[in-house]
Amino acid sequence: MSRLTRFVPILDWGRAYSRRDLPGDLMAGSITAIMLVPQAMAYAMLAGLPPEVGLYASIAPPILYGIFGSSRALAVGPVAIASLMTATALSALSPAGSPDYIANALVLSLLIGLMLLGLGIARAGFLVNFLSHPVIAGFTSAASILIVISQLKHLLGIDIPRGESVATLVNLARGLSGANGVTLAISACSLVILLAMRAPLTALLQRLRLSPFTVQLLTRSSPLLVVILSVVVTSAWRLDESAGVAIVGAIPSGLPSFTVPSLDLGIWQALLPSAALIAFVSYLESVSVAKALAARKRQKVDADQELIGLGAANLAAAFTGASPVAGGFARSMVNFAAGANTPLASILTALLLAISVMFFTPFFHYLPQAVLAATIVVAVVALIDGASFVRTWHYNKADFAAQAGTFMVVLGIGVEAGIMTGIVLSLTLYLWRSSRPHFAIVGQVDNSEHYRNVKRHHVRTDPAILLFRIDENLYFPNAGYLEEHLRAEVAANPEVRHVVLICSSVSLIDASALETLTELRDTLRAADVTLHLAEVKGPVMDRLQATDFTRDLAPGRIFLSTHDAVRTLRERLYADSYAADI
Amino acid sequence: MSRLTRFVPILDWGRAYSRRDLPGDLMAGSITAIMLVPQAMAYAMLAGLPPEVGLYASIAPPILYGIFGSSRALAVGPVAIASLMTATALSALSPAGSPDYIANALVLSLLIGLMLLGLGIARAGFLVNFLSHPVIAGFTSAASILIVISQLKHLLGIDIPRGESVATLVNLARGLSGANGVTLAISACSLVILLAMRAPLTALLQRLRLSPFTVQLLTRSSPLLVVILSVVVTSAWRLDESAGVAIVGAIPSGLPSFTVPSLDLGIWQALLPSAALIAFVSYLESVSVAKALAARKRQKVDADQELIGLGAANLAAAFTGASPVAGGFARSMVNFAAGANTPLASILTALLLAISVMFFTPFFHYLPQAVLAATIVVAVVALIDGASFVRTWHYNKADFAAQAGTFMVVLGIGVEAGIMTGIVLSLTLYLWRSSRPHFAIVGQVDNSEHYRNVKRHHVRTDPAILLFRIDENLYFPNAGYLEEHLRAEVAANPEVRHVVLICSSVSLIDASALETLTELRDTLRAADVTLHLAEVKGPVMDRLQATDFTRDLAPGRIFLSTHDAVRTLRERLYADSYAADI
Repeated sequence: MSRLTRFVPILDWGRAYSRRDLPGDLMAGSITAIMLVPQAMAYAMLAGLPPEVGLYASIAPPILYGIFGSSRALAVGPVAIASLMTATALSALSPAGSPDYIANALVLSLLIGLMLLGLGIARAGFLVNFLSHPVIAGFTSAASILIVISQLKHLLGIDIPRGESVATLVNLARGLSGANGVTLAISACSLVILLAMRAPLTALLQRLRLSPFTVQLLTRSSPLLVVILSVVVTSAWRLDESAGVAIVGAIPSGLPSFTVPSLDLGIWQALLPSAALIAFVSYLESVSVAKALAARKRQKVDADQELIGLGAANLAAAFTGASPVAGGFARSMVNFAAGANTPLASILTALLLAISVMFFTPFFHYLPQAVLAATIVVAVVALIDGASFVRTWHYNKADFAAQAGTFMVVLGIGVEAGIMTGIVLSLTLYLWRSSRPHFAIVGQVDNSEHYRNVKRHHVRTDPAILLFRIDENLYFPNAGYLEEHLRAEVAANPEVRHVVLICSSVSLIDASALETLTELRDTLRAADVTLHLAEVKGPVMDRLQATDFTRDLAPGRIFLSTHDAVRTLRERLYADSYAADI
Repeated sequence: MSRLTRFVPILDWGRAYSRRDLPGDLMAGSITAIMLVPQAMAYAMLAGLPPEVGLYASIAPPILYGIFGSSRALAVGPVAIASLMTATALSALSPAGSPDYIANALVLSLLIGLMLLGLGIARAGFLVNFLSHPVIAGFTSAASILIVISQLKHLLGIDIPRGESVATLVNLARGLSGANGVTLAISACSLVILLAMRAPLTALLQRLRLSPFTVQLLTRSSPLLVVILSVVVTSAWRLDESAGVAIVGAIPSGLPSFTVPSLDLGIWQALLPSAALIAFVSYLESVSVAKALAARKRQKVDADQELIGLGAANLAAAFTGASPVAGGFARSMVNFAAGANTPLASILTALLLAISVMFFTPFFHYLPQAVLAATIVVAVVALIDGASFVRTWHYNKADFAAQAGTFMVVLGIGVEAGIMTGIVLSLTLYLWRSSRPHFAIVGQVDNSEHYRNVKRHHVRTDPAILLFRIDENLYFPNAGYLEEHLRAEVAANPEVRHVVLICSSVSLIDASALETLTELRDTLRAADVTLHLAEVKGPVMDRLQATDFTRDLAPGRIFLSTHDAVRTLRERLYADSYAADI
């Protein structure tokens, strides 16, 4: 693969495009478009932006991603959690829906695009690994709950100011008596149809032996069906005027025009931290989906190329009046399941969206906001995963602490604080754990050359030889801990003449630990105990040999294996006792 | 040992005090006092405080430490680096030497005392382990350079405003023509005497076969000698008036009176971060010296009790008009070498200091500030350790990066930023390293049961069995890295039918890594490759068995040892080929 092809994957798949791929791409492109039209408007509403901003985010960005992205099936466009984070970031600067608010959305897209592109060029895709799965799970569940809370006012038809979750709930409870009955009815019908057209309809259609494609098409068009029904009903009875149902209102027709984001450095600075977190979360969501889908077809996703693809998509958003974009989880799954073979499917979706904004926007005028809220709620409720908390609790308490901490901070303080808390908490808990490492006194298993923990296995030991296995790298936070416990073991076993430190788990001995080992060697020697090492790995040995430590270890030795050490030391001990007998 | 005795060590050593300990304690107490009188005034000057504050810090605090501290030889009082940090903290709030400045010093002592005491009660002494040796070395060298720079104006007799190091150097260069010749002469003589009375005099006296005690007494009294000489010369010729030599001036006579630190919460809040860092550094310095000295006499220092002892000493400082205190490195070494057997030596030093402030303060009126500066410079120059940078560079580049980073930030920005940088840098570098762990493909060493890296040892391998040893815990930052490289190895060896993941270095598989292993197991199986584990440690096994992972591993297995795995899998492979032959 040439250098250019590597950075512009379309040159790769485009050149190799086969006619056999076309039917799948056409179907996937159409189904995804049907799903995307209401979703795009809904996520724009969630972000506090006019509906057309979400539609624009579904045109140029997926085309750019199709050119530069490495995933074959990722469907790029507005997504739920990034929209929530966009709302949080923008509403800190100006009121939702104001001209400044909309202008700042472009700056956010630009910053996210530049950052992703920069990280891609620096090949820093690995950074995403510092978000642990439990933190992601806690974050996603909590963010989904926040999204549901934010949509309740639309579902109930109550007008309350945007605010943090507890305040919103209090305001909702206070304003409950003023809920709009007709809006509530529309919401209820929408939710029932949307939910019924998922699992129940799928099961029914499968029993009717319809083709999988037809099943997909019918079940996935539920949002569009609800949109059409509600628009017909609302416009027929003019429910906006007669019953006060909040509607989407006028959406400008035509393709997005070229926009230039503001270059005001003050605004850039104010949005930078949020942009970094949105970029991080968007990238994470996209690359996880992309990897999962690629694995099913034995294709490969290049984590660094994904940064470039998503960066290009967000830059496209910035210059076409659109909000930040990412690869959506549910939408990409639909795209994949509907048969997408190449990014051409995404490009087709974008073209269908472009046709929508050119010709069909007047139709959406009477669309109730409650219907959009219902599609959002149904989409994100699936992301609230209570069972994962139970699983994590049973497996690992530290992971659970990180997950629960992230969950609670997202709910109690906010999404940005939550994700930072999650990262810091999970790393701190790991460091804390590795500062108090597990260690074991080991002995010989039967007559094998294998040595295991005396507390867990039936093993042979020698009172004069202490086999001490340390189960962690030796570095500054745990060097003192090792020293303390090793000394305690020696003190508790006065017959010990040789200590063998088994380093099978040690991939690093840092400068602090080396000093500690040096002290340990010298103080043990003063007590007539010899320190030896065993199973020192190659890279660790290379470093040790460059120091005085190994030279001054004598009569202590570094043994290849624990068994070698025991054999040699037993011989030495027996020789000593023979000498004493003579 | 009763609970009370444990928290009040004086009840332990006081009850067991033997007459044989007395001569050593008397000598050590006297020698340390002789060394401490000029040092206490010098460090007060370094902290921007009047000289008596340093003397007061040498009276009540060491007595309290003698009661509550667990080290037998630690000499508590004002120390160089904490004094520098005190100056930095206080001068951010008010001009050096002003009444507010002096009052805030008491608040600082109080906060440090409370924090140390709180950490001691919480048994949080391990926290100090998070400062690595290279960070401490970089910090100490840089702080010592800052101290030398801060004293140049006194040595040269130039009056320039207190400021950060570069500004100070620029101001000094500009004001060099205005240097005071007589002051310069005093500085030069002091430095020569102080330096000559260290190694050269020691060597000379040893050649004269004087007793070690006499040698100690004579060499350690050099600061006092310089003080006496300079006071005599300065007062005889009234150099302060005739030549403009800056002198210490009037020092109030008598014991310190009881002081109550300000309870102004605004000041508490402003000083809190600095207090935390000074507490941290003071504790670190003290406990390192205490441990080193205790090890020489096979005594034990209780890290948590040290927090209580130093906390009590700083509270004593707060209520007797004194600046923050710690266990000094050089002074404790002298105390130990001069024969201190118990904390009674420190208590005697404190009593001698008390006699000094009652009767001898008028004598110090004509003491030139340049002499104090010379004692500071000679004391801290010994702490600048360039060789340690070279050693660290050769041993471990990450450790060197942390050391050099700390050094540069301390010099360029300041002591507090430097120590924070050091901690964050060393932890980040460790996490970065563990996110890209070492791994090895291993094979059988000769006919033993020992398996080592194919690249480093001459080993036997089987083309159908991939033995993959991962040299790090499996946790979220490196789970993706493992997956990627393991897949690459399998792809590069198409004959492989079994992959054995050797977990001898794995003491933790967190929830993220478990998910990765589950995916790996399933995708390898789809490619007709079976994943096995070997040498899984007890605690890791306990956790795995609580999950579905092990159950669904079949036909993969978890082997006790790598050798077991190879033997069993070879049998399986041979059985398969026999079956195919039939």
